[in-house]
Amino acid sequence: MNHRMIFYTISRMMLLAAVLLILPLAVSLIYGEACYAAFLWTLGISLILGLPGTLFCKPKKKLIYVKEGFLIVTAAWLLFSVIGALPFVISGEIPNFVDAFFEVVSGLTTTGASILANVEEMSHGLLFFRSFTHWIGGMGVLVLVMAVLPDLSGRSIHILKAEMPGPIFGKLVPRIKDTAKILYIIYFALTLLEIFLLLLGGMNLFESVTHAFGTAGTGGFGVKADSIASYSPYLQWVITIFMLLFGINFNLFYLLLIGKIRAFFRSAELRVYLGIFVAAVILVTINVLQLYPTFAEALRHSAFQVSSIMTTTGYATTDFNLWPSFSKVILLLLMSIGACAGSTAGGLKVSRVIILFRLIHREIRQLLHPRSVNTIKLDGKQLDETTLRSVSGYFAVYMLTTAMIFLLLSFEPFDLETNLSATFACFNNIGPGFGAVGPVSNYAAYSPFSKIALSFAMLMGRLEIFPLVLTFLPGTWKKN
Amino acid sequence: MNHRMIFYTISRMMLLAAVLLILPLAVSLIYGEACYAAFLWTLGISLILGLPGTLFCKPKKKLIYVKEGFLIVTAAWLLFSVIGALPFVISGEIPNFVDAFFEVVSGLTTTGASILANVEEMSHGLLFFRSFTHWIGGMGVLVLVMAVLPDLSGRSIHILKAEMPGPIFGKLVPRIKDTAKILYIIYFALTLLEIFLLLLGGMNLFESVTHAFGTAGTGGFGVKADSIASYSPYLQWVITIFMLLFGINFNLFYLLLIGKIRAFFRSAELRVYLGIFVAAVILVTINVLQLYPTFAEALRHSAFQVSSIMTTTGYATTDFNLWPSFSKVILLLLMSIGACAGSTAGGLKVSRVIILFRLIHREIRQLLHPRSVNTIKLDGKQLDETTLRSVSGYFAVYMLTTAMIFLLLSFEPFDLETNLSATFACFNNIGPGFGAVGPVSNYAAYSPFSKIALSFAMLMGRLEIFPLVLTFLPGTWKKN
Repeated sequence: MNHRMIFYTISRMMLLAAVLLILPLAVSLIYGEACYAAFLWTLGISLILGLPGTLFCKPKKKLIYVKEGFLIVTAAWLLFSVIGALPFVISGEIPNFVDAFFEVVSGLTTTGASILANVEEMSHGLLFFRSFTHWIGGMGVLVLVMAVLPDLSGRSIHILKAEMPGPIFGKLVPRIKDTAKILYIIYFALTLLEIFLLLLGGMNLFESVTHAFGTAGTGGFGVKADSIASYSPYLQWVITIFMLLFGINFNLFYLLLIGKIRAFFRSAELRVYLGIFVAAVILVTINVLQLYPTFAEALRHSAFQVSSIMTTTGYATTDFNLWPSFSKVILLLLMSIGACAGSTAGGLKVSRVIILFRLIHREIRQLLHPRSVNTIKLDGKQLDETTLRSVSGYFAVYMLTTAMIFLLLSFEPFDLETNLSATFACFNNIGPGFGAVGPVSNYAAYSPFSKIALSFAMLMGRLEIFPLVLTFLPGTWKKN
Repeated sequence: MNHRMIFYTISRMMLLAAVLLILPLAVSLIYGEACYAAFLWTLGISLILGLPGTLFCKPKKKLIYVKEGFLIVTAAWLLFSVIGALPFVISGEIPNFVDAFFEVVSGLTTTGASILANVEEMSHGLLFFRSFTHWIGGMGVLVLVMAVLPDLSGRSIHILKAEMPGPIFGKLVPRIKDTAKILYIIYFALTLLEIFLLLLGGMNLFESVTHAFGTAGTGGFGVKADSIASYSPYLQWVITIFMLLFGINFNLFYLLLIGKIRAFFRSAELRVYLGIFVAAVILVTINVLQLYPTFAEALRHSAFQVSSIMTTTGYATTDFNLWPSFSKVILLLLMSIGACAGSTAGGLKVSRVIILFRLIHREIRQLLHPRSVNTIKLDGKQLDETTLRSVSGYFAVYMLTTAMIFLLLSFEPFDLETNLSATFACFNNIGPGFGAVGPVSNYAAYSPFSKIALSFAMLMGRLEIFPLVLTFLPGTWKKN
């Protein structure tokens, strides 16, 4: 175990945290809000935590393995969450630490579940900070480190792999650092484009930026109590489309950039993703038709909600908790599927679902023709047994984790629908669920125990379970 | 495809149905009930359907393959369900065919879900028949055919495999026919023992026999509106223990019979099964302690309910729908796990759950030590990759089927808790769920569409999905 390298990387992460805090600090100063002091304090604490390690602990060997990759990712996310909770606590806007921790984990993991009863009372600085955590967490805090810091190249692919969601990891270009840079450039450009289109629709700059952050990270924190409901249909459609875009694998955008347009549209994951979206929108639109005055409105609300839930964003234009059961069950299923691997979204990921279906198909072929050799392909490439095993292993551990979270929540006095949808909504990084945690409610009523359980659920969802599990497994720390 | 052999086997099944109907016919004659005519009619219809094929369609080659095995099993179960619905419809005690079909599928699949509002109004003949379907369906209608009919030996292992639940099929003795016989002898002996112990506790003969049938098949149809609640603690404990016994792999009882006692207790599945039972009883007892006057009563009710749900029987001594959420979630999880493979119980089966956990464990080892070779063992034997793949494939198709049934039910005006637990309770062959389908309610309020969907869910649960799916797949019928 390369402890020195782990400590060094974490220390640099703290410095990065300090740098990132300059942005919300600036916002609070612009608005002349008292919370600027909270940001200053937190910035100072990050510097104090990060400087010694960075200056005096330069590791001799930079080689790290899978294990170290997982540990660095877990440590970085936990530390960012604790540091991120400080501005809320220090400013007194969320005085309770557990609540603040829940809110920041929800932000960084791009979940968007909130404990705030009235978001409109918050200062601009902290609202900006909340949405900014979505943007940072969406593409990944460590991907950011790799993109902006020079000397993290030795085997850092294990960090990228541990932080990037999905069953198959594709490097875009030979150097990891360049891959990370390209990903962030695409991410930044798409975010800017959304801000521009929102401004065009008459949204003010502050709200455009925060909503673009929330969309880009597929997070869902807003600045209004009714989420996106009070905005114009144009603005709602812009957000619908951008949520959908940010649910696409970023590697595919890179293919578009370098002109491989055919390869973009040939992606099985993209096709299935869009297919599920269209099918779900049709079914939900028909199902909710009688609830809205016009077909156009029913279509707009169902497209928005389907896009929001499927990409695990969690914005809402209507209280979908009041929709008929059929639509709610469809949303519940979409929560589990999630969007594409390599996007900012949560859930199982469409590519895993495709592979699971092909595994079932292979079982059936095997039963009919026991002696045939059956391989599974994705996008023309044959998948090796290790990938297939990891997908079915992930599915098993995913369902097991869902069951465990659900069991932990069952001490709460809520009904089964509330607890089950809270489990799904947090573990898959969506945000709002049904019942008492529906889109017009919040998670404040849960006990501190459940809030911590749900915080870990969000982290497990974002980091795809294994990094956290491995960190708390004694076997990981044994020498071999 | 050996169509002749399929037709011949199905015809003989009809003759068997006619023979089996003699028993409830006799009961209705003893009690002097009018329903005897319904049994006579049904018996006649079975004879007419079965005789021509048996007499004139003797197949030249008896060889059958996996495909034919699946088709025979599906056809046999569907036909038995349709024939079994006739006595209810003809006698007018359940005049609606869909209701009668639901009730018989529920009986044969040993689910125990009922549409009857007041079971105590039924005639003895039909009550006996209802419980008898549990006993027949528990060990399997085709296993019975193989045990009692002489000439079904050529490759009939594929039929046995298709009907017996669990991931690994173990022949007890070289000849299939003998294996089937041994299984039925153990089954019969255990049932007799339970009848004796129930009589000893003061239960009358009719109720002892019907409850023993319901326990043996892990079915759950009773003869009283309050299930087992009004019986003495002694009787409740007897049923608790026998439910648990019938949830054990029958191959293990054979090991006991031939004196391999150490091998019996070394079985990983048995140990985990009993371990889960003890752990669940402890957790539930603590959770429901304040609902009952004494510790002994809390323990009795929680042991009974845990045993009933885990073995997918469905009897109840108390309205567990009123238990706190934590206990209900534990019951929901037990519904999915089920009991041992090779028993009469439903669910995923404990051995599959063990293998799934070992698959997860292997994934973790693989992540920590990417170059190590990791095998998975069960009871000292290394499992081959085909078995492992079939377990993870089954888990995927199991979860997918659960989601589909849940979606189909969502057109009903019930809450999510009712529909979700109805899905679990029918697909895993338990019977009662929570909410509107709790232990003191019934399934009568569901629409005919949902009743048919749930009937297929029960059949899929009992036959472990693939036989039914394959039958309705065009690829199965193609020549190759």
